Amino acid sequence: MINKLTSEERATQVTELRGWQAVAGRDAIQRHFKFADFNEAFGFMTRVAIKAQEMNHHPEWFNVYNKVEITLSTHEANGLTERDIKLARFIDSITA
Amino acid sequence: MINKLTSEERATQVTELRGWQAVAGRDAIQRHFKFADFNEAFGFMTRVAIKAQEMNHHPEWFNVYNKVEITLSTHEANGLTERDIKLARFIDSITA
Repeated sequence: MINKLTSEERATQVTELRGWQAVAGRDAIQRHFKFADFNEAFGFMTRVAIKAQEMNHHPEWFNVYNKVEITLSTHEANGLTERDIKLARFIDSITA
Repeated sequence: MINKLTSEERATQVTELRGWQAVAGRDAIQRHFKFADFNEAFGFMTRVAIKAQEMNHHPEWFNVYNKVEITLSTHEANGLTERDIKLARFIDSITA
């Protein structure tokens, strides 16, 4: 079992990420990415997929050509948890 | 330049695919897939990605865990073309 972040934890930790926004009507965060082309976008997705599998924590994501939209939330907690922050930090680290 | 399928071509060719539906309000087709887990879903996406890159014709797609939703349309023709049918056929062939 994993607990949702408290409002304070959430405020601090989401602010420390890069470009992640709250999702309207859901306890989740979202970031949009734009790459040079599909090769670069899918290469990025593959790196995230491997990390997600290792963490057993998976994104919701949409891709078209060079664009990727990622939404993070923890289904079993019905909201944002440390796992989302950890995955978001990894994603930020590979898109520096 | 590539032309949109005619109504007749479209009716025949989409019917020959498996499980593809017209998208409301767009000249596009969509199919939903469900796999055993994320590993299988992303493995499938990787096969489609490699084919799409080879064809230089890319899907719009959404994934969460074991689910994948794929939408096909040809942006430069603003609708459904032979390229979409060809990519859909490939996708069908690897999910038999």
